[in-house]
Amino acid sequence: MEVMSGKNNSCCLNNGDVVEKMKSLGRLTCRKIWKVGKEDKRRVIHSLKVGISLSLVSLLYLMEPLFKGIGENAIWAVMTVVVVLEFTTGATLYKGLNRGLGTLLAGLLAFLIELIANESRHIFHAAFIGTAVFLVGAVTTYMRFFSHIKKNYDYGVVIFLLTFNLITVSSYRVDSVLKIAHERFYTITIGCGICLLMSLFIFPIWSGEDLHLSTVAKFDGLAKSIEACINEYFSNDNINQQEEKVRKNSMEMEDPIYKGYKAVLDSKSSDETLALYASWEPRYLRNCSWQQYVKLGTVLRHFGYTIVALHGCLQTEIKTPQSVRVLFKDPCNRLAREVTKTLKELSDSIRNRRKYCPEIPSTHVHEALQDLIDALKSQPRLFLSTNSNTNILLALATLPTRQKSGKDVLVSLPSVNNDDPARLGLSHDLMLKEGDKKILRPTLSKNGITSLEFLEALPFAAFASLLVEIVARLDLVVEQVVELGRVAKFKEYSHDDVVINVSCDNNPRVESEFPSSQAAAD
Amino acid sequence: MEVMSGKNNSCCLNNGDVVEKMKSLGRLTCRKIWKVGKEDKRRVIHSLKVGISLSLVSLLYLMEPLFKGIGENAIWAVMTVVVVLEFTTGATLYKGLNRGLGTLLAGLLAFLIELIANESRHIFHAAFIGTAVFLVGAVTTYMRFFSHIKKNYDYGVVIFLLTFNLITVSSYRVDSVLKIAHERFYTITIGCGICLLMSLFIFPIWSGEDLHLSTVAKFDGLAKSIEACINEYFSNDNINQQEEKVRKNSMEMEDPIYKGYKAVLDSKSSDETLALYASWEPRYLRNCSWQQYVKLGTVLRHFGYTIVALHGCLQTEIKTPQSVRVLFKDPCNRLAREVTKTLKELSDSIRNRRKYCPEIPSTHVHEALQDLIDALKSQPRLFLSTNSNTNILLALATLPTRQKSGKDVLVSLPSVNNDDPARLGLSHDLMLKEGDKKILRPTLSKNGITSLEFLEALPFAAFASLLVEIVARLDLVVEQVVELGRVAKFKEYSHDDVVINVSCDNNPRVESEFPSSQAAAD
Repeated sequence: MEVMSGKNNSCCLNNGDVVEKMKSLGRLTCRKIWKVGKEDKRRVIHSLKVGISLSLVSLLYLMEPLFKGIGENAIWAVMTVVVVLEFTTGATLYKGLNRGLGTLLAGLLAFLIELIANESRHIFHAAFIGTAVFLVGAVTTYMRFFSHIKKNYDYGVVIFLLTFNLITVSSYRVDSVLKIAHERFYTITIGCGICLLMSLFIFPIWSGEDLHLSTVAKFDGLAKSIEACINEYFSNDNINQQEEKVRKNSMEMEDPIYKGYKAVLDSKSSDETLALYASWEPRYLRNCSWQQYVKLGTVLRHFGYTIVALHGCLQTEIKTPQSVRVLFKDPCNRLAREVTKTLKELSDSIRNRRKYCPEIPSTHVHEALQDLIDALKSQPRLFLSTNSNTNILLALATLPTRQKSGKDVLVSLPSVNNDDPARLGLSHDLMLKEGDKKILRPTLSKNGITSLEFLEALPFAAFASLLVEIVARLDLVVEQVVELGRVAKFKEYSHDDVVINVSCDNNPRVESEFPSSQAAAD
Repeated sequence: MEVMSGKNNSCCLNNGDVVEKMKSLGRLTCRKIWKVGKEDKRRVIHSLKVGISLSLVSLLYLMEPLFKGIGENAIWAVMTVVVVLEFTTGATLYKGLNRGLGTLLAGLLAFLIELIANESRHIFHAAFIGTAVFLVGAVTTYMRFFSHIKKNYDYGVVIFLLTFNLITVSSYRVDSVLKIAHERFYTITIGCGICLLMSLFIFPIWSGEDLHLSTVAKFDGLAKSIEACINEYFSNDNINQQEEKVRKNSMEMEDPIYKGYKAVLDSKSSDETLALYASWEPRYLRNCSWQQYVKLGTVLRHFGYTIVALHGCLQTEIKTPQSVRVLFKDPCNRLAREVTKTLKELSDSIRNRRKYCPEIPSTHVHEALQDLIDALKSQPRLFLSTNSNTNILLALATLPTRQKSGKDVLVSLPSVNNDDPARLGLSHDLMLKEGDKKILRPTLSKNGITSLEFLEALPFAAFASLLVEIVARLDLVVEQVVELGRVAKFKEYSHDDVVINVSCDNNPRVESEFPSSQAAAD
């Protein structure tokens, strides 16, 4: 009670505050309303379409001549419009046709049961209807658990059950059940007709188009993620470390890398829904390519998982020294650029519904991959031992060199079995401390050789290995895109198209890739 | 036409075949029906529940005394049961309460509009109703695009729109609209009541329980995936290669690794739906922990992505020689076992709704991680050069050793800049050819030193690095599980519980982990 009175007091005292708060809440709501519409203008159009359809269908009731013809059952047309008119044409058709089919089948079954029931006496009649309702209810509900029916006809089954029950049960009290069923079907058809008219001919919104564009957007997102990953990995280390700590705290941050692949990872259910609705759309019926979009989505998701792992490499706390990363910067950069370019070309070819010609770019990717592999191969070997006498063996391997060359070709090795606990575990920091760096740098500049522990090489190796993995996955993606071009009957690839597209995009990199790639690498 | 008659002929000729086919189709259908029920027995129960509910609600119509009391509007109760009674209690409550609330609000708004409209003359009345229908339709539809409303009240908004239109439009022709609305609400309440009774008290199926169990299953699946990954990586190479090719062709295969993490990757939408329904379930209302389950699901998905990358390491075509992998088999095995064990403990603690005590196992994991890091550190350094004079420098580094020791400590190095194109690119095979192996093996047994190219070390490094990454992600998972224990008010951790649980599971590894881990490693 005290708390409440206290609240009241504060309310009275801070009356101005409350008004202010209400105002800001109002502003916030207005901004939210504006934002929802701005994100996708089709939402506003759809809302207006629903309003107009409802007004139209209400005329059946409101206008005297129309009402005289149809009567009370006009209410079913209103109901149909509310339930059937969905955002996209595909969804409307899915619901409309399911509703129509469900109603028709239910009507037929109800009529059949009615025929049998009418043969019997009154009391048995009720029992018969009760049993039929139970059986049909149980069987229909069980059918909804079949994955194929669940996926394609769930709404139709519900409507079947609904209509069957409405007709069967009311037939017990009403004699003219056939007339009612007929009228109801008639008005439902009017309702469906208005919905189809609205969704097919007035600013139609196609699920197929949505699926198509979302697939294109996925490619662009993935390309951006890879670009951002590579840039961050080879950018200045100090900045990275700061950014990293912020990023780690919340995975959901607006990190460009995360933003790029996020939409891909969680696309499964939305892809499947869009493909289901798209498969009902007449405009695309002949193509039957929607399942291919879903397949492509699956492959893209797997591609995305590899980028997540690549992103993980940036966030790991054991770091490969910047000096080592720089050695492989050019080939890694080039490979990433080629992969990105391929992704953009794939996205372009899908966007323009043009068949993708896999030969040219994939050669470049594999050239870049070979460059990276060459770079990795050009590095001398790694020596691994199975026992802990490494120090001795190492001494055997390195000391004579130093004695012989006298030039200190190799930097001095700190004790390899250094077990300083502060340097172990996840809180492992840069292995190459500041002091070491000072010794290392002049040596590097003279002879260009650096040594590093296997542990330090690990993150870079993972990074490089994931890049290689990305190329392997890219091949699978290209395969699916080519298959998509074939199944969806995209127009043939022609070299002119590409040039035109490229000049439209103001992207000179596709034409003269080597000079620009060199420039970017520098 | 010819084709058709041809078909008919073949039909006549192969009449026996058709009968046989029909029979086999029948058998297939029966088996399918049986399988759907066997997979989840609750499906059968739910179907029977729907049948019984429908029969019960039909009694309102079929029994004379009940029908006299309620009349024609009883049909709305039937409709409500069909639409509202869902598989889980949460879904039923969500739909039932949304339907109730939507109907109530729509009734109130319709009553308000009716009051204003009644003041006006007949022709204006119709225009007023038309405008109201348009405005309410458009605004309500627009509201459905707000993510919060879409998520929690979408069904309620549809019902609101439906009811509002039905009442407003019919009010134009019927005078006693308030009486109709009242009766309709009354029968809808009866329908909802039967649904709630059925779903709350007769074999209730809880969404919360489903979400809880699916979370537990995710942990088990991930643990199995990691186990299978490690076993495959360190198992015999030859068998792997054969398996690999089969696996690559279809990602969807029934591979134990893929099976383990598959459910986790695609869990987003099902998790969110279950959490939404669970949040309506009274049994768990006080806990409010469902959003925490969703958060845990997100972290587990990110954990899963790392396992996907680990799985990718098994499928890569550049292989680290088995001889090198064996060097790190024990620490990797131990780390994986500790991670698996932690996952199983986490799953146990959630299964038993017991708080998780993160200290003990996480120490073991970090000990195992340190072991792996030690093993990696105990390996000598890697020498990297920035120019291509590597051969000369390498010669400087290795030749004197051989001269001095005279024991051929290091295996002979093939030319490092070997550019044989067949060995490059993705079709890169095992670097260590059969011939090399024969030279290598005896040397290994003598001195336990092996050398490998950086490129060969890559896949193993990636594997090890991902294992380290998994530990880092595991910490995030543990954090979320501890948070879940706190939010969901799980019972306190007690050491006795763990021992009892372990002995129940017949899993002796938890009690005496070191000896068994050693044994397994050997």
